[in-house]
Amino acid sequence: MSHKGPDAATACRAIAQAAEREAFANRMGLRLLEVEPGACRVEMVPGEDMTNLFGTVHGGALFSLLDEAFQIACNSHGVTAFALNLSVTYVSSAKPGERLVAEAHEVALTRRTASYHIRVTRDSGEVVATAQALAYRLGTPVPFLDPSG
Amino acid sequence: MSHKGPDAATACRAIAQAAEREAFANRMGLRLLEVEPGACRVEMVPGEDMTNLFGTVHGGALFSLLDEAFQIACNSHGVTAFALNLSVTYVSSAKPGERLVAEAHEVALTRRTASYHIRVTRDSGEVVATAQALAYRLGTPVPFLDPSG
Amino acid sequence: MSHKGPDAATACRAIAQAAEREAFANRMGLRLLEVEPGACRVEMVPGEDMTNLFGTVHGGALFSLLDEAFQIACNSHGVTAFALNLSVTYVSSAKPGERLVAEAHEVALTRRTASYHIRVTRDSGEVVATAQALAYRLGTPVPFLDPSG
Amino acid sequence: MSHKGPDAATACRAIAQAAEREAFANRMGLRLLEVEPGACRVEMVPGEDMTNLFGTVHGGALFSLLDEAFQIACNSHGVTAFALNLSVTYVSSAKPGERLVAEAHEVALTRRTASYHIRVTRDSGEVVATAQALAYRLGTPVPFLDPSG
Repeated sequence: MSHKGPDAATACRAIAQAAEREAFANRMGLRLLEVEPGACRVEMVPGEDMTNLFGTVHGGALFSLLDEAFQIACNSHGVTAFALNLSVTYVSSAKPGERLVAEAHEVALTRRTASYHIRVTRDSGEVVATAQALAYRLGTPVPFLDPSG
Repeated sequence: MSHKGPDAATACRAIAQAAEREAFANRMGLRLLEVEPGACRVEMVPGEDMTNLFGTVHGGALFSLLDEAFQIACNSHGVTAFALNLSVTYVSSAKPGERLVAEAHEVALTRRTASYHIRVTRDSGEVVATAQALAYRLGTPVPFLDPSG
Repeated sequence: MSHKGPDAATACRAIAQAAEREAFANRMGLRLLEVEPGACRVEMVPGEDMTNLFGTVHGGALFSLLDEAFQIACNSHGVTAFALNLSVTYVSSAKPGERLVAEAHEVALTRRTASYHIRVTRDSGEVVATAQALAYRLGTPVPFLDPSG
Repeated sequence: MSHKGPDAATACRAIAQAAEREAFANRMGLRLLEVEPGACRVEMVPGEDMTNLFGTVHGGALFSLLDEAFQIACNSHGVTAFALNLSVTYVSSAKPGERLVAEAHEVALTRRTASYHIRVTRDSGEVVATAQALAYRLGTPVPFLDPSG
């Protein structure tokens, strides 16, 4: 984690505010806990209405949590970035009602790409899912960055 | 696509009924259009409440559609299967309100694993996302298979 | 598969010649069988010196075959492209001495990215490995394109 | 990293010896630097005969290094494991002659599966490639485990 200057702080504050207003985050109950340049933690408590054919939490719900952490981490430098690829491995199934936290951290950052590792864990620390994610960086400032920061 | 005997038809009917009742599918508006052994098509019209920080459809919503197609295809043989890994590549962004269809087909089937390729396209045929998915097969019948089929 | 004009034919001829001279292809015994815009087939007969700890063909050797097919397919339009991500699933193990063929085909092509599905099969048609691959397109002509084609 | 008892030491010693004799490792110049349960470091100095169409190190060569680290890490517990899936992201290109090191560490371990993150770096510390890997654990001892350890 580097470049924690005022600009980084501004970008992180702006993305935290944008994440709080995000439609999908609100629909899915995704809550940003913490963000710093290149890293963040997002929380979800999946409801009974997020279960799959087997009554456990749907892969799409778990992925939504992972993806939200990815989106926030890759835009946290204040430069617009969007997802190119994400590979997720499911390690253990999750039950509705249990608190899950996704933690993203940056593995590599270049001018045009950024790579992340992301884990979803339950409160016991057990891993539920793990992912590797690749973003493309447009090079332009994120649109929700408040210039008056 | 093989083994389209009465058992296959029974399994496909059972999974179609289970998919219709699935909590997450109902929450996300995922609708199974067609299923045969090893393949299926699932539809979603993402709402305004599924948008990300940039106002386009959230990666988690697109993935939910892909993952539902994967879940149905890998369980369509009537043998319980669950997701091990899924790698998704985002090709173009999607807008709320446009109809998206995920189409899964089987690439390889062994006793213990099954592999799928999945594409999400919009009505024009343009690809929105593409995925490769790997499932582990337990070897036991799917729990929602109606034995009186 | 589209754009099969004279330019496409020239690009495919140029890449076929470059592939024949490629150092790694020669070292590994990778042989291009066929190339057209966005697709190709590459062959390898792994030797005894390509085995892993268990005496079967090493994942790195199988991947080299997949990756060569990917490299050729994504550069076959005559526009320089390089690998961003590749997700490989191993379906069955391979033995030294058996002929393996990797077949790549294009799933999506945009100005800046290109996506492929690739399969490695043995002569019986059985799948050995399957992959999804993502390339970044620089937008400049491939350096080995012979303008006098 | 846990379970570093005598059994773990025996398994790690056995795999280090097997890796030294491995045909593919010798062919590609892959050298195990260090192994402990669930983690290892492997080195390669790619030669001029490992270059791709653009004169940089071929993706198949880089992957071979990653895959060797994965194979050793997932078998380091003394339980037979084989690769199911590997997703690799290429961050920067490598030149023939430069020393590359792959470092694998375990993200999750269950009875039947094991997950790893792997990075390839050059001497400057810059990331060349990063991967996420998934192994299936057979549950039987590795065949090269010397019982007289």
